[in-house]
Amino acid sequence: MRDVYAIGVGIHRFGELWDMSLRDLFGAAALAALDDAGVEEVDAAVVGCMASGPFVGQDHLAPLCAEAIGLLPTPVIRVEAACGSGGLALRQGFVEVASGVSDVVLVAGVEKMTDVDGAAATDILATAADQEAEVFHGVSFPALNAMMARAHMERYGTTPEQLARVAVKNHENGVANPDAHFRMRIDVEQVLSAQRVAEPLGVLDCAPRSDGAACLVLCPAELARSAGRPVVRLAGTGYATDTLALHSRADLTTLASTTRAAAAAYRMAGISPPRIDVAELHDAFTITEIIALEALGLVDAGQGGPATERGETALDGRVPVNPSGGLKARGHPVGATGVAQAVEIVRQLRGEAGGRQVRDARVGLTHNVGGVGGTSFVHIFSAC
Amino acid sequence: MRDVYAIGVGIHRFGELWDMSLRDLFGAAALAALDDAGVEEVDAAVVGCMASGPFVGQDHLAPLCAEAIGLLPTPVIRVEAACGSGGLALRQGFVEVASGVSDVVLVAGVEKMTDVDGAAATDILATAADQEAEVFHGVSFPALNAMMARAHMERYGTTPEQLARVAVKNHENGVANPDAHFRMRIDVEQVLSAQRVAEPLGVLDCAPRSDGAACLVLCPAELARSAGRPVVRLAGTGYATDTLALHSRADLTTLASTTRAAAAAYRMAGISPPRIDVAELHDAFTITEIIALEALGLVDAGQGGPATERGETALDGRVPVNPSGGLKARGHPVGATGVAQAVEIVRQLRGEAGGRQVRDARVGLTHNVGGVGGTSFVHIFSAC
Repeated sequence: MRDVYAIGVGIHRFGELWDMSLRDLFGAAALAALDDAGVEEVDAAVVGCMASGPFVGQDHLAPLCAEAIGLLPTPVIRVEAACGSGGLALRQGFVEVASGVSDVVLVAGVEKMTDVDGAAATDILATAADQEAEVFHGVSFPALNAMMARAHMERYGTTPEQLARVAVKNHENGVANPDAHFRMRIDVEQVLSAQRVAEPLGVLDCAPRSDGAACLVLCPAELARSAGRPVVRLAGTGYATDTLALHSRADLTTLASTTRAAAAAYRMAGISPPRIDVAELHDAFTITEIIALEALGLVDAGQGGPATERGETALDGRVPVNPSGGLKARGHPVGATGVAQAVEIVRQLRGEAGGRQVRDARVGLTHNVGGVGGTSFVHIFSAC
Repeated sequence: MRDVYAIGVGIHRFGELWDMSLRDLFGAAALAALDDAGVEEVDAAVVGCMASGPFVGQDHLAPLCAEAIGLLPTPVIRVEAACGSGGLALRQGFVEVASGVSDVVLVAGVEKMTDVDGAAATDILATAADQEAEVFHGVSFPALNAMMARAHMERYGTTPEQLARVAVKNHENGVANPDAHFRMRIDVEQVLSAQRVAEPLGVLDCAPRSDGAACLVLCPAELARSAGRPVVRLAGTGYATDTLALHSRADLTTLASTTRAAAAAYRMAGISPPRIDVAELHDAFTITEIIALEALGLVDAGQGGPATERGETALDGRVPVNPSGGLKARGHPVGATGVAQAVEIVRQLRGEAGGRQVRDARVGLTHNVGGVGGTSFVHIFSAC
């Protein structure tokens, strides 16, 4: 297998973007990434998108994406893994280049979520959970995550204040990200007193619905060297599945698929958790970031809350997490998230992250989850 | 790149199967394929499905499929290319094995379409067309194909009787296929006098909505030899995109993406059209089979209708097309179709097709289309 490098990144600002279509968003991010990479053609593209059919009446994204940026008749592979769709696209882009099947590959993530109302969006997002065993009985997606939060509190003593600290930190980081959906600070009191969604999670514990797109250009070593751009190596990829329904799991306080995916990615990259300088984690809910910290081995089991409270995951902490603002503040257009995380890490490792730059960042990690962990994707990047 | 072989196939009977869920259908076909291949584990699976979210409220198929057949935590890649989703799954399964990324790969196609009513299904299927440029203005999917039929009739003199012959032939073949949705003969008069859908297409020119699943096990040469089963080589794969909207094409009487995909597949396999002994083509509408015959080089441009009328594509003809009954009679669970075609060709090349067996079949072709040709997938199989 060949080494794989990221030579270009592009993103369109996340938000409630009523003046842009799915096609517009993809086009903007893709052209920005190709421009950044200094390439005009690719051999293939992989597009991660969860639910463009229900959200905007458009499936069959391959021809739409190829045509939008003048790529016809190039093959485009649309993949879906719920909120992990972007992570799956990144993994498949890696496979395409590493295997030698393609040289230059565009990896894209896109979602357009705000053309439907909140109730419809909740129903669409619930297709990530088990329809027959969970959703049929009325369980929503925030409710499933609230159950995990309750179990974590019960076992480890994690507090609502610790959960709130995740949101406060990520909003603080988002202020410095011009591509973020929300660029305002919040405080612990606001999080704790916000409208309840599913106890113990309030609305400020939950990532928003967003529109947005993010892209990355991957290629093998020889092309990366000749590109004349600062290059970043995609050094490891890991993907694992777990039961779709939460109730089938032995332990509600962790994400087994994340631990398995991380082990594979660390092994491939030859890197251990203490070497991670910066990470973009899947904070769809505040509890998810805390559990991810633990499942990825960045802190010990049960220490996600206290570590957050001590500031270890802040921009100037031991292991800065979600400098982009994360899903919470940058926004969460579900199919785009896994690729947007990679865009942020590439920018961090290039030293191009401006006011949210992590000092001396050499090794970065992204963690993207589908559903409540039925799928997990972990990627490790290193500066060259 | 390594040679790729199919060592096992499985299919669940297509039809209006209200007593089986998407999970049940996938499980039945997957276990049958694994059993046929004589393997219990796979390194990865690729699942093609167009729209399980809108049809049955279930996306995030990776954990569902992995869990259904005891494959957790194996990576499962869900891909979508509208009615070409099965073809894309087959292409990605090929890539996975040929590249050396995985050894044993399960390729699956599944769709559960009959839990919603006809109007809802029409809307869901229309997400394969261009939402902004076509569907918004009220164009349905049969209407787009009817426009192609009119253009073909205008240019080449293709007649309604010739279109009807496609349906009559495929129903005749379907009678001998125990997995087919429809197993009854129809005649030309019935097709011509059937309820009109979009002139010149009547309801018997259109493939039905169906539930169903089909699976294939792929592996490299050394494993294929030791499997002790008759093996079939997947000798060529081709995939090309074209404009999503029909009105953007220079020529409405052909499928440029099919011609490009076929050229790639023929080249990879080192096989030319006259060597094809049996083919499964995408007869979503009768006109589609006629255009496909021409775009694949199996007959000259404009000769699809006359060749069909002369019986050249019948089971005992020069190049038997759709011995399974095709989409028209076997049924068309959209995501499953591309894989079901491959299952039929493998059975034909093994000599296991019973009453619909094509004599001396050594080389077979499958042709799967997304939308009205925004994507096309062509695969070539050869007996070993």
